[in-house]
Amino acid sequence: MDQQQFAEIDRIFNPRCTAIVGASADERKAGSLFLKAWRTTGYRGNLYPVNSSESEIQGLKAYPSLKAIPGEVDLVVVCIPARSVLSLLEDCAAKKVKTVQFFTAGFRELNDSGLKREEEMVKIARRGGFHILGPNCAGIYRPSLGIPCGALSLVDKEEGEIGFISQSGSLALRFIIEGIARGFRFSKMVSYGNACDLDSVDFLEYFALDPQTKVISAYIEGVREGHRFFEALRRAAKAKPVAIWKSGRTAVGAEAAHSHTGSFTSSKVAWEAALKQSGAMRVESMEELSDLLLAFQEIPPLKSWRATVISGVSSGGGGETVAAADTCDNLGLEVPPFTVQTQRRLEAVIGQVGSILRNPLDVSQAYANPQTVYKTIEIVAADPQVDIMIIKEEMDLFYAFMSEEGAMELNDLLVGLREKSGKPIVMVSSLGIAEEGRLRLEKRLHQAHIPIYPTLERAVKALVHRSRYAQFLSQVS
Amino acid sequence: MDQQQFAEIDRIFNPRCTAIVGASADERKAGSLFLKAWRTTGYRGNLYPVNSSESEIQGLKAYPSLKAIPGEVDLVVVCIPARSVLSLLEDCAAKKVKTVQFFTAGFRELNDSGLKREEEMVKIARRGGFHILGPNCAGIYRPSLGIPCGALSLVDKEEGEIGFISQSGSLALRFIIEGIARGFRFSKMVSYGNACDLDSVDFLEYFALDPQTKVISAYIEGVREGHRFFEALRRAAKAKPVAIWKSGRTAVGAEAAHSHTGSFTSSKVAWEAALKQSGAMRVESMEELSDLLLAFQEIPPLKSWRATVISGVSSGGGGETVAAADTCDNLGLEVPPFTVQTQRRLEAVIGQVGSILRNPLDVSQAYANPQTVYKTIEIVAADPQVDIMIIKEEMDLFYAFMSEEGAMELNDLLVGLREKSGKPIVMVSSLGIAEEGRLRLEKRLHQAHIPIYPTLERAVKALVHRSRYAQFLSQVS
Repeated sequence: MDQQQFAEIDRIFNPRCTAIVGASADERKAGSLFLKAWRTTGYRGNLYPVNSSESEIQGLKAYPSLKAIPGEVDLVVVCIPARSVLSLLEDCAAKKVKTVQFFTAGFRELNDSGLKREEEMVKIARRGGFHILGPNCAGIYRPSLGIPCGALSLVDKEEGEIGFISQSGSLALRFIIEGIARGFRFSKMVSYGNACDLDSVDFLEYFALDPQTKVISAYIEGVREGHRFFEALRRAAKAKPVAIWKSGRTAVGAEAAHSHTGSFTSSKVAWEAALKQSGAMRVESMEELSDLLLAFQEIPPLKSWRATVISGVSSGGGGETVAAADTCDNLGLEVPPFTVQTQRRLEAVIGQVGSILRNPLDVSQAYANPQTVYKTIEIVAADPQVDIMIIKEEMDLFYAFMSEEGAMELNDLLVGLREKSGKPIVMVSSLGIAEEGRLRLEKRLHQAHIPIYPTLERAVKALVHRSRYAQFLSQVS
Repeated sequence: MDQQQFAEIDRIFNPRCTAIVGASADERKAGSLFLKAWRTTGYRGNLYPVNSSESEIQGLKAYPSLKAIPGEVDLVVVCIPARSVLSLLEDCAAKKVKTVQFFTAGFRELNDSGLKREEEMVKIARRGGFHILGPNCAGIYRPSLGIPCGALSLVDKEEGEIGFISQSGSLALRFIIEGIARGFRFSKMVSYGNACDLDSVDFLEYFALDPQTKVISAYIEGVREGHRFFEALRRAAKAKPVAIWKSGRTAVGAEAAHSHTGSFTSSKVAWEAALKQSGAMRVESMEELSDLLLAFQEIPPLKSWRATVISGVSSGGGGETVAAADTCDNLGLEVPPFTVQTQRRLEAVIGQVGSILRNPLDVSQAYANPQTVYKTIEIVAADPQVDIMIIKEEMDLFYAFMSEEGAMELNDLLVGLREKSGKPIVMVSSLGIAEEGRLRLEKRLHQAHIPIYPTLERAVKALVHRSRYAQFLSQVS
C-alpha cells in the first residue's frame, strides 16, 4: 500500500461532513436509527439527513437530495432499498463524495442479479473516484470523532489502539459493547459486509501502517484475493500483533456465510496452514478474540511468561490448584515450581498443613484475611521464577468469608504490588450469587487496568496467545 | 452394594445429632466457622460444640468432651490439629458415633507419618463400627436437612436430584454457589478429601441406588481401587447419567493432586479409555460440569436433538449465525435446514433481504420488535425438523434497541411457547454493559426453568452431552 492508497483509506475514517440517506419521520426505520446514533454519540462534523419528502428530521434540516446539500459531503450513509441505489450513486459521483457506506442489503448474498447490481455500483464508484463500504454492512466506527457503528448509539469515551475489521455488522456492535464492558479499546473499526469494492485486505494493509493502531483484529467470513490477503497478513504480523477469527470454516458455516455476505469460504485446512505461516494468531470464537484483545492491551511484552496461579483467596482453593495445573499444562502456559526460598517464606506466613505450598498456590490457610492473603502474594511476586500472576478471586465467596471492604483493600494492595514488582496481574472472577458486589469489585479493577477473565481457561488461552506472539516476534526479528 | 452397606452410607447423610469439635470463642478458627454455618443454615438436629475449656460458644452450651454429651451423637465434625485426632477417635468409638468427618488436614498429603496416622485412624473406626470422611475434606451437604458444606453458611432452599461426589472441598463449595446462581440443585453432596476410609466408589455405588438422586456427578483427583471403581461406574451409568471430572490428568496436575489429597493419579489415556467404556460422561472443567448439570436438570430426554440457533433478537445477528453454524458443526450438534414451508412463513413475517432465512436463523429484520421476533420463533418452533431451540439474547443490546418491558414480554411469550410446542428452549446471554438489567431478565428466566448459558459454545457442549447420553441409553437398553 503506497502513501496515496493509505491516504484514501485514512480519509474514510475522517469524514468531516456526513449525509444519511433514508432517515425519515418513522423512528423505527434503519435510516432514522442511524441518524439518531450519529446525533447522540457526539459526531464532530456536519450531519445532513436526506429525504425527498421531509424538511426536518429529528430536529435537523433535511435535504431532498445529495445535490441540495450546501458544501462538501465526505461520507454518505445509505439506508434505502437496493433498487434505488444506482441513481443515488450517480448523485454521489456528481457531488464528489469520498465514501459511500451501505447498510442496504439484498445484493450478492441474495442472488445473481444482486451480484450484478454490485458490479454496476463499483463501476460508478471507480468513475466517480469514491469508495464503497459494503453493501450489507454497519460501516465505520471511530470513537475519537464520535462516529458510531451502525445504529448503535454508543461510542467508547476513550480511544484505544486496537484496529478491528469485521465482515459482520452485528459482531462489530458486539465487540464495541464487549470492549466497553471489559475495558479494551478501539482506534478504528470497519464492518465491510459484501465487500464489493474495499475488502478486508485493504483495511489490513491500512492498519499495518496506521500509527494509531497497535493491534489488528479481524472477523472474516471469506476473502477474494487470497494471495494478496496472505501476503498482507504476513507483512502486518511482522509489524503488529494480528488476530484473525475466520468463520464459515465448517460446511454448515460456509453455507451460512454465503447467505450472510455472499462469501465463498475456502477450506479450513488451507486457512489454518496459511494463517500459521503468516504469523497471525488464529482464534475460533468471539470470546477467544475479546480475551486476546484484552491481554494485548493490558499486558506489556515480557521476556518470559512463567506464571503462578493463586486460588483460595476467599476460601479453600486446593481442588482448584489441581485443576489449574491441568489447565495450564494442557494449554501450554508454564507454571514453574517456586524456589525453596519462596516455599520457606510462604510456610512462615500460612504454615504447611492444609495449604499446598506449590505453584499453583492455595492460600486458603490465610483464612480470607486480606493482609495475610496479600503477604503470600507478595512473597510469590518476589520469586524470580514468576513473571506473571493469575489470581482467582471468587467474588461470591468474598461475601461469604471476607467483607467487601476487605476485598477492596486486598485488590488495592494488589494494584500497588503490580507497580512495585513490575509483574502483571490477571484476575479470574466467576459469576455467581453476589453479582452486584462482583460488579463493584470488577469496576475498580477495570479502572486500575487489571484484566479480568470469567474463567481460568480463558485467561490462560489469552496469555498463551500473548506469549506466543512475543516468541514469534523474537524469531522473525 | 447390598442393603446394609447402602443403609450405612445413607445414615451418613441423615445425622440427627452432630458434635463440632474445635469450635471456640475465636470466631476465625475453622471449628467456629463450621459451627456458625450449621447454626445459620437451619440444621434440623441437635448441635453440640465440644471444647475442653469453654462452657458456651455462639450461644450454645459447649461440652468438655464427646462423652459429656447426653444422648446419641450421629456425626462428629473435627476441626482440631492432626496430632490430637487419635484420642478423639477413641472417644468416638466409646460414644458409638456413626460418622466422623475431618476438616483437619496434614496427613497423607503431607508425608509418610501422616499416611501412617490415617491407617491408625481407620483401625479405630473399624473397631468402633463407624465411618470416616476425609481427612482433609469439607464433608457432607444435605440441603433438605439444612446441613451446610464446610464452613459455607449457605444452603439451597430447594432440594434437587443431583448427587455430587467431590474430592475437593473448595470445589464442592463452588458448585453449591454455582448451582444456586444458575438454578441446578443437589440432593446430596460429599467432599471426601484423602479418602482414608470411604472413597469415591462408595458414594458412586450409593448414589446409583439412591432414589432421591437422578444424576450423578463427581470431581475426582485419584482413585485407589481402579477395578472396583470402573465396575461401579459401568453399573451406575446404565442406571443414571454420570458425569466425571477427573483432574490431575497432566504431569503438573498429578503432582498438585498428590500434595492436595495425597492422590496418585493414573494416566490420562487409561482414564479416558475406561471412562468411555463405562458410558459415563467425561468433562474437563468446572464450567463444563455445571453446564452439563444444568442441561440434565432442565431439559427432558428427547427422541432426537436437532437444534435451531436464533440470533439477532435485539440487533443484527448475521455474523453470529455463521459463527453459530461453525460452533454446532464442530461440537457435533445437528442444525438441520428448515422445511420449505417454514422458510416461506418466515419470509412472510420478516422478508428476505438482510435476513438469513436459514438455520441458524437471523431475526434482525424483526427490528427488535418483541411481537415480530416472537412470531418468527413461533414459526421455527412449528418446524418438524426442529427439536430444541437455542436463542441468543444479547441482554445489552436489548437495552439499546428494545425496552426492558419489551424484553420481559418476549421472554414471557417464549416461556409460553415452550409449553405450547413442547420443545425446550435454551438461552444464551452474554455479559456486557447493562449488567443490572441482565440480572433482572435472567432471574425471571431462571424462575421459569429456562437454562441460561454465558456463551453459545458452552450451551452446545452441554446439549451434546445431553443428547449423547440419550443415545448411549438407547444402545445399552
